[in-house]
Amino acid sequence: MKALVLEEKGRLSLREIDLPTSLGDDDVRIDMKAVGICGSDLHFYTHGRIGPYIVNSPMVLGHEAAGIVTEVGSNVTSLSVGDRVCMEPGIPDWTSVQSRKGLYNLDPAVHFWATPPAHGCMCPSVVHPANLTFKLPEAVSYMEGAFVEPLAVGVQAADKAAIKPGMTALVHGAGTIGIMTAFAALAGGCSKVLITDVQQEKLDIAGGYDGIVPINVAHESSVDAVLRETDGAGIDRVFEASGNAKACARMFDEVCPGGAVIMIGMHQAPVALDIVAAQIKEIRIETVFRYANVFDRTVALLAAGKIDVKPLISKTYPFESSIEAYDFAAQGNPDVVKVQILFDN
Amino acid sequence: MKALVLEEKGRLSLREIDLPTSLGDDDVRIDMKAVGICGSDLHFYTHGRIGPYIVNSPMVLGHEAAGIVTEVGSNVTSLSVGDRVCMEPGIPDWTSVQSRKGLYNLDPAVHFWATPPAHGCMCPSVVHPANLTFKLPEAVSYMEGAFVEPLAVGVQAADKAAIKPGMTALVHGAGTIGIMTAFAALAGGCSKVLITDVQQEKLDIAGGYDGIVPINVAHESSVDAVLRETDGAGIDRVFEASGNAKACARMFDEVCPGGAVIMIGMHQAPVALDIVAAQIKEIRIETVFRYANVFDRTVALLAAGKIDVKPLISKTYPFESSIEAYDFAAQGNPDVVKVQILFDN
Amino acid sequence: MKALVLEEKGRLSLREIDLPTSLGDDDVRIDMKAVGICGSDLHFYTHGRIGPYIVNSPMVLGHEAAGIVTEVGSNVTSLSVGDRVCMEPGIPDWTSVQSRKGLYNLDPAVHFWATPPAHGCMCPSVVHPANLTFKLPEAVSYMEGAFVEPLAVGVQAADKAAIKPGMTALVHGAGTIGIMTAFAALAGGCSKVLITDVQQEKLDIAGGYDGIVPINVAHESSVDAVLRETDGAGIDRVFEASGNAKACARMFDEVCPGGAVIMIGMHQAPVALDIVAAQIKEIRIETVFRYANVFDRTVALLAAGKIDVKPLISKTYPFESSIEAYDFAAQGNPDVVKVQILFDN
Amino acid sequence: MKALVLEEKGRLSLREIDLPTSLGDDDVRIDMKAVGICGSDLHFYTHGRIGPYIVNSPMVLGHEAAGIVTEVGSNVTSLSVGDRVCMEPGIPDWTSVQSRKGLYNLDPAVHFWATPPAHGCMCPSVVHPANLTFKLPEAVSYMEGAFVEPLAVGVQAADKAAIKPGMTALVHGAGTIGIMTAFAALAGGCSKVLITDVQQEKLDIAGGYDGIVPINVAHESSVDAVLRETDGAGIDRVFEASGNAKACARMFDEVCPGGAVIMIGMHQAPVALDIVAAQIKEIRIETVFRYANVFDRTVALLAAGKIDVKPLISKTYPFESSIEAYDFAAQGNPDVVKVQILFDN
Repeated sequence: MKALVLEEKGRLSLREIDLPTSLGDDDVRIDMKAVGICGSDLHFYTHGRIGPYIVNSPMVLGHEAAGIVTEVGSNVTSLSVGDRVCMEPGIPDWTSVQSRKGLYNLDPAVHFWATPPAHGCMCPSVVHPANLTFKLPEAVSYMEGAFVEPLAVGVQAADKAAIKPGMTALVHGAGTIGIMTAFAALAGGCSKVLITDVQQEKLDIAGGYDGIVPINVAHESSVDAVLRETDGAGIDRVFEASGNAKACARMFDEVCPGGAVIMIGMHQAPVALDIVAAQIKEIRIETVFRYANVFDRTVALLAAGKIDVKPLISKTYPFESSIEAYDFAAQGNPDVVKVQILFDN
Repeated sequence: MKALVLEEKGRLSLREIDLPTSLGDDDVRIDMKAVGICGSDLHFYTHGRIGPYIVNSPMVLGHEAAGIVTEVGSNVTSLSVGDRVCMEPGIPDWTSVQSRKGLYNLDPAVHFWATPPAHGCMCPSVVHPANLTFKLPEAVSYMEGAFVEPLAVGVQAADKAAIKPGMTALVHGAGTIGIMTAFAALAGGCSKVLITDVQQEKLDIAGGYDGIVPINVAHESSVDAVLRETDGAGIDRVFEASGNAKACARMFDEVCPGGAVIMIGMHQAPVALDIVAAQIKEIRIETVFRYANVFDRTVALLAAGKIDVKPLISKTYPFESSIEAYDFAAQGNPDVVKVQILFDN
Repeated sequence: MKALVLEEKGRLSLREIDLPTSLGDDDVRIDMKAVGICGSDLHFYTHGRIGPYIVNSPMVLGHEAAGIVTEVGSNVTSLSVGDRVCMEPGIPDWTSVQSRKGLYNLDPAVHFWATPPAHGCMCPSVVHPANLTFKLPEAVSYMEGAFVEPLAVGVQAADKAAIKPGMTALVHGAGTIGIMTAFAALAGGCSKVLITDVQQEKLDIAGGYDGIVPINVAHESSVDAVLRETDGAGIDRVFEASGNAKACARMFDEVCPGGAVIMIGMHQAPVALDIVAAQIKEIRIETVFRYANVFDRTVALLAAGKIDVKPLISKTYPFESSIEAYDFAAQGNPDVVKVQILFDN
Repeated sequence: MKALVLEEKGRLSLREIDLPTSLGDDDVRIDMKAVGICGSDLHFYTHGRIGPYIVNSPMVLGHEAAGIVTEVGSNVTSLSVGDRVCMEPGIPDWTSVQSRKGLYNLDPAVHFWATPPAHGCMCPSVVHPANLTFKLPEAVSYMEGAFVEPLAVGVQAADKAAIKPGMTALVHGAGTIGIMTAFAALAGGCSKVLITDVQQEKLDIAGGYDGIVPINVAHESSVDAVLRETDGAGIDRVFEASGNAKACARMFDEVCPGGAVIMIGMHQAPVALDIVAAQIKEIRIETVFRYANVFDRTVALLAAGKIDVKPLISKTYPFESSIEAYDFAAQGNPDVVKVQILFDN
């Protein structure tokens, strides 16, 4: 099958590659319709690795996908040929200790698309477990379906936050995941979400949504903004999606007593945290790794119109122009949120 | 002061009555602007009692109120003269065992407006503790402010439900509290809320809102509706706001395995519950009594435009016509949600 | 293989029967050492059914088991030949919606030992999934190992109760599951556990343990006992393990405001609950169905000596005398807690 | 009244000082029987400050106290003259935002014994709010009663940990608070608690208790110990009570996926935490500040014999020898856990 292959750091090919195509009894076959380009795809492209995950041999990229079911395994009753679907990209060992507890995202043996050594889905057709394949209602397009994966990270963060209706939130970082988190926090009950960044273009995009208050921390203290926007009470939930150690230094001043901080951004180095500042407010700190049991609810939020990701799809490319798409996305223009590849299946 | 006094079952007067007017150090004085008529006000009017609470002597009615601060006690720093506010009507003993745990609504010594023997607020001016008086932002009118109290019951129920973003809910009963609960469930993260009743007028009002699916259980099985709307999965959260034993008989068929049921409606008699049906799904059942720590978040949801109660204000009357207003509300027209009294303070 | 077979209601045989013996890659083979007789085994024996589960064809009984590993499948790394183990008797579909959430006990497709149509383990050797087979430390005997299953129900109930250290509890019913629940509540943090029954022999057994206060409700009001033992505060957690509707009528008077009730006992008919009594205290009601993710912790509590089940093993029989054992157990002597079958493997 | 006064850093007097003695309607008067010396008392003595709390004027020390009620205010019904009691030393503003939520320990206006500018209780008699004064059952001596305060910190930590029965725990630091936390974790449901330190004397004391496994991290890796003691699974709950940054560097290797870390120790400087290491296990981090709503449960655990603090009372002094007692305690002998002052009231 033809696929977008990362041959090694910095070198992409669109070429034939041998991928597994046999359909198991619990699997479905899917013709691809849309695949988004994620920051991690780009990082593998430009750096050849993310932390311990190193590209040692050619690897197909892509893990944000939507398509149409073309064949179903003999045990599959939940899906039919012709169903429009999106796919959860991590396949765990369902019998592991973590999976049995419902924490299948923490199973060390998880096989996750486009994380070495597992191939991704930037190719015209894939075979996937039916129970990780989710039907898209009429109201959700393939392009939105390919947005479920990054949005699911935000929903996982909102789950961990245990938001009560009407709470306030602040998100550090207006990148894709930061915006996804702001959307999930709003849809999940927040009355108002502040979002911080130093790139005004990103803040303009996020701030264009109802309920999101952009704060440019190059020009304004986020703590001052919090005090102003909360009448001095402090923010109920802080989501750290910047991966920036400086943002972490402000978290415990932003959050209210009894509040919570949710760590989403990956920090390259250990981060110095003022534990005493957290203790005197008894702050709870949660950490997020991908997601578990959120894809169905994420699709439901899109279907209900509670979250609208369409304005964030900055540009699309046909599959044949995937390399061009990656090169464009790798430029990191601050006003580009999401680039997607469309297939003419 | 002149006030609307329930002299005894079935007899209202608008007359002078002696009410406490001295301002404590932690109190504020408020000129009333709007007070809603609640089902419990009407029940005291028509039946002279609610369960153990019996009207044995003349009592001022009313507990859904908004107004303007005209004087502040010497310790009060959170409010100023001229602030537009709404008021939480239950004054607990803050030092009780329950209050110390944050469960001040469960304090047996709570002094709650218009619950015998405590007078309510259907009068031009009241004195109230500052910490139970909440500022209304510009965007929230007095009439909306007087809606915070019933909406707070829905928010308390949504708190207990521990909704995760994108979950589904079903509300039994499309009366005022049922609709408030549907609003709170949607604002609190639900992607879709089914609401049941047998009065089509009520369902038409509720169903006019985005995200609310009306089910007339006189014509359709709620369990069938649930299966259809959830692709057979069952509903994540059932809110029982009908006070109807028949509705309770269906709850455990409607809810999904691992789901929860929240009991809001007051049932006159014990309700027969099929415990085994709940056990095989390990259903959690929560119960709601008024509210605690939700007024600020309820105001925030109104201010953010996440909940719009304005279309539910069916009719208003000036204070001088309060008795007429009560008589109108007591008719129980199915297309009337909320009647409010406005003051020309 | 020879096994104890329930041929039909009221008729047991110890005879050869064809049972699956092929070892899967993720399975272990276990020589049986001890199997307890459960109330449900006896109920199938004497009534031929439990609710919807009907014995329509010969079925091997038994699901409380401990033994020694004699062979391991090719994928198994967690266990070795010679390991002393106990077994969790319900095998779910790990890929189901419920299992993915960690609620594998709620999977409708679960295959549970000695629940029709699944055979049980009252036989000299079984094949079982390795991930449902738990190593017994030196300190835990096979007879104690065969007690892990009923104790696990108590631990599941204690999990649901969310006990805080030092809380008080009351258990309705001093049968095996009631005592298991009292043990789990004490081990799980309670400072004191009241237990009620009308059979003094059962209360004498339970009351022989430190921290357990027996209440004979034939002679004393449980509500009075609660008030006396809690200085009027009410009990933090009520565990309903009696299956008796009369006990349920007292629950909301026994429990303190903000407390919780955990329903373990199976009630044949719907139970009338005073919802208003629960609401004014905002009681949380949890329901229990078997257990999930508790076997390892249950074994750890036995190994640590925090729970001692040995005095509850009233009588043992060799496998060859299984029918005699069942007939003895079926007499329901009030001073008999647990009868076990021992194998001379 | 005569009291132990810290005149300034390093200088103690036992002298007359003017203390409030008027009894409010909700207060009780208590004759002191036993007061423990806390590490914070010693720190004020030797350093004149703890973080932002600076001893700028003479201050009475002491906040771990038990005594006997000698007079009760006119509103007090929960206590009587002659009751043996212990006292919770922080008096919040019960009407504050934090207190209303049950988080009264986080009220910034809390008046806490022996934290500048509030005087402590190292004096023969005090007046205290009745609702912060807890009856000691017969089985609990005054000396044990004076241990409730430090033990309450451990119980608060165990509350935050949300221990499920049979879980494992590790405590960093075998100082008084570390041992209290180990006790609370065991009493709160843990099957086994590892405790680390570099002082063998402290480990010997802690390790003398059933269920506590001492680990001298001067000689052994705590991560290795965890793997050995948990069969490679990792520890369910890590309690950081050492205040040592090096211990924090190991936390996320010790804890199991989905586990939790509870921060109790006060760290002088920000602590570098490896957020990614926490994220890949989705670790929850809780922080503890004193306690709220735990004194009654702490007393109950002592009364039930689930926790035995008596062997930890290393030495006692009469009130007249308080300065000698402080000087002895300030030496910090590793085999001394608690020094108490006894009054001959």
